[in-house]
Amino acid sequence: MATLHISNLTLTIYNHGIFVLMSAALSFLLIVWRFSLAEAGRSHHFEGPSSNPVKPHSITIVGSGNFGSAIARLLGRNVLRSPKHFRSEVRMWVFEEELDDGRKLSDVINADHENVKYLPGIQLPTNVRAVPDLSDAVRNASIVVFVLPHQFLPGLLPRISSCLHRGAMAVSLVKGLDFDDEGPVLITDMIREGLGEDVSEVCVLMGANVADEMARDEFCEATLGCPDPEGAGAVLQQLFDCPTFRVEVTPDPIGVELCGALKNVVALAAGFCDGLDWGGNTKAAIIRRGLEEMRLFCKLLHPSVRDMTFFESCGVADLITTCYGGRNRKCAETFARAGGTMAWDEIEKEELGGQHLQGPQTTSKLHKVLEQKKWLSRFPLFRSVYQIAYQGRPPATLVQDL
Amino acid sequence: MATLHISNLTLTIYNHGIFVLMSAALSFLLIVWRFSLAEAGRSHHFEGPSSNPVKPHSITIVGSGNFGSAIARLLGRNVLRSPKHFRSEVRMWVFEEELDDGRKLSDVINADHENVKYLPGIQLPTNVRAVPDLSDAVRNASIVVFVLPHQFLPGLLPRISSCLHRGAMAVSLVKGLDFDDEGPVLITDMIREGLGEDVSEVCVLMGANVADEMARDEFCEATLGCPDPEGAGAVLQQLFDCPTFRVEVTPDPIGVELCGALKNVVALAAGFCDGLDWGGNTKAAIIRRGLEEMRLFCKLLHPSVRDMTFFESCGVADLITTCYGGRNRKCAETFARAGGTMAWDEIEKEELGGQHLQGPQTTSKLHKVLEQKKWLSRFPLFRSVYQIAYQGRPPATLVQDL
Repeated sequence: MATLHISNLTLTIYNHGIFVLMSAALSFLLIVWRFSLAEAGRSHHFEGPSSNPVKPHSITIVGSGNFGSAIARLLGRNVLRSPKHFRSEVRMWVFEEELDDGRKLSDVINADHENVKYLPGIQLPTNVRAVPDLSDAVRNASIVVFVLPHQFLPGLLPRISSCLHRGAMAVSLVKGLDFDDEGPVLITDMIREGLGEDVSEVCVLMGANVADEMARDEFCEATLGCPDPEGAGAVLQQLFDCPTFRVEVTPDPIGVELCGALKNVVALAAGFCDGLDWGGNTKAAIIRRGLEEMRLFCKLLHPSVRDMTFFESCGVADLITTCYGGRNRKCAETFARAGGTMAWDEIEKEELGGQHLQGPQTTSKLHKVLEQKKWLSRFPLFRSVYQIAYQGRPPATLVQDL
Repeated sequence: MATLHISNLTLTIYNHGIFVLMSAALSFLLIVWRFSLAEAGRSHHFEGPSSNPVKPHSITIVGSGNFGSAIARLLGRNVLRSPKHFRSEVRMWVFEEELDDGRKLSDVINADHENVKYLPGIQLPTNVRAVPDLSDAVRNASIVVFVLPHQFLPGLLPRISSCLHRGAMAVSLVKGLDFDDEGPVLITDMIREGLGEDVSEVCVLMGANVADEMARDEFCEATLGCPDPEGAGAVLQQLFDCPTFRVEVTPDPIGVELCGALKNVVALAAGFCDGLDWGGNTKAAIIRRGLEEMRLFCKLLHPSVRDMTFFESCGVADLITTCYGGRNRKCAETFARAGGTMAWDEIEKEELGGQHLQGPQTTSKLHKVLEQKKWLSRFPLFRSVYQIAYQGRPPATLVQDL
């Protein structure tokens, strides 16, 4: 953009002849200025060429569970690298809880810099501040990071609306999907509707990002889906990206977001496969077919979705992690070993201490959409997973129709 | 195609008015004929509507190792389903060996219908015939299936040439790749040059196809790369496809073939990752980056290669299987656990009883090509794998440049 300004300027002045030298000198100075900005990082994307630089962004994380705390650790560290672009304090909204020793969770986080309940044993940067009051947490924030189960959003969004900095950016790290009678309801749409004109852009960040591994600084990647990669995308990339958490930006937020939810259906298939003691050929085939059906479903629903998104971390990488290591895979393995006779809530109780599993619920809601749209025959894997999970079809028939 | 004939015919005759009814009746008969052909399988692709049906194909498999025997089992069974299109006898060229009991391997296969040396415990169909003499094995074959280490090809091709049925089809299941100073030498090109005008088409079949799992009839997929999907592609699909071995045809033989060799380089990276005890995030990121570099390399070398090929079994699925279960992964894990201090031939001796590993060799030759073409900076993962495998770079730095 700066380069364009220089060319326009040069051309305009050129015609006047006597300004040629002046113009050359000015161009040189602008190039030097532009170069120094580029050197300073990706800052030039959101700092215009005006002499009044934009104020540093104020960051709030809404959510403080396992993944939220790992993200707080990442962002707390990252903002310190770019003081010109981000305020040093990262606020984290904490749903207040009293711990066994009578202390409040937010007090412990602020005193000991550790989320002892959801990410124990990991030090958080001292510039991460836990805030139990939601309005306090988001007041004047210019970037809000949502990282909590989607069920909480309808209750929180009205309270967040109008507290934000005008034109704030939102980014959803919420994995999961809601459905209405028409089909999937994107979390980003829910946020956009909930916050209205308070936000300028709603983006989404997904990928193979298991929280505990992130917190140990093991290398991973993420995909940032953003309608405006050069603007908000570049700011958010700078906020999230670091050498152990590489962020790639794609202009396909819908594809990125749908990947995060649909993968859990494929993970059930992978878990059935493991529970049946099938080998690597079959598991790879199931994962591949799953990726194909994810891609087809996204494109049927939203023709703008790009094939390339499925090669990103949010696509193939997150799917692989989930199909080899996730909770949905594990529970589906148990389901298949029990011959399909255990109820899902029983398995959740046994394997996850009653915590809720995304996969079966997504499978069921997805099936309803496929049925309504008369797409069932085009999604043999999704259909088989539903029939096995809910209709008593034997797990061993999983690959029969593929 | 048959449908088109019907329409032309109908239109031509229609203008003559009095032939309308005749034309309708003829169309009906043609539709019935077409329907019966479709019911009979995919046969209509290579049997024209002429009254002289093409003779059944005569199949020879060149190679009888672990994978070759699993393929013989598959083809032996498949040809019996389509007696109109394939002769019932499948010949398998066996490199003759004397077993410990003094019997010859080919005699045992023909008497007991089991390759006791390379696929023990698995019954082969009785219509698979082991033939120790190469000329006898390939004489008048109209489809030759190559499934053996590529090192043997230069010695065999001149002996095969001119024995084949004129216009025979060849299909390569050879995983591996040769390199000359210019870059990779495709096995299909080697076969095409070696057999010259004796073959009409050289195709390639790759995918997540571990032999032992195939032999147990576990579900898997494969990708058939064929320049003419409607012609040779359809014949070969009919020959290989069955409910437990699903074959998809793509018109991108080069992409399919290169996938099969390059995956072994990525498998070394995955093995290093396992040997370093890194978690699922990192392993998924490595596999994804590997897939990206495979895609980029193929497209730089052959711009005709299609992105979609990497979503096929030969791409993402074979890569997953190899990175979770293969021998290259295993040996690379051992390499990383030893801190990069063991030599590759030592590891091969220990892990594989001295059998040769594809990955390190391909890595080294690939690196030479990247260096010559000045592409090293675009392939950080391939470069790191080479430096770790051959230049003493510590395995723990694998993801440093990604």
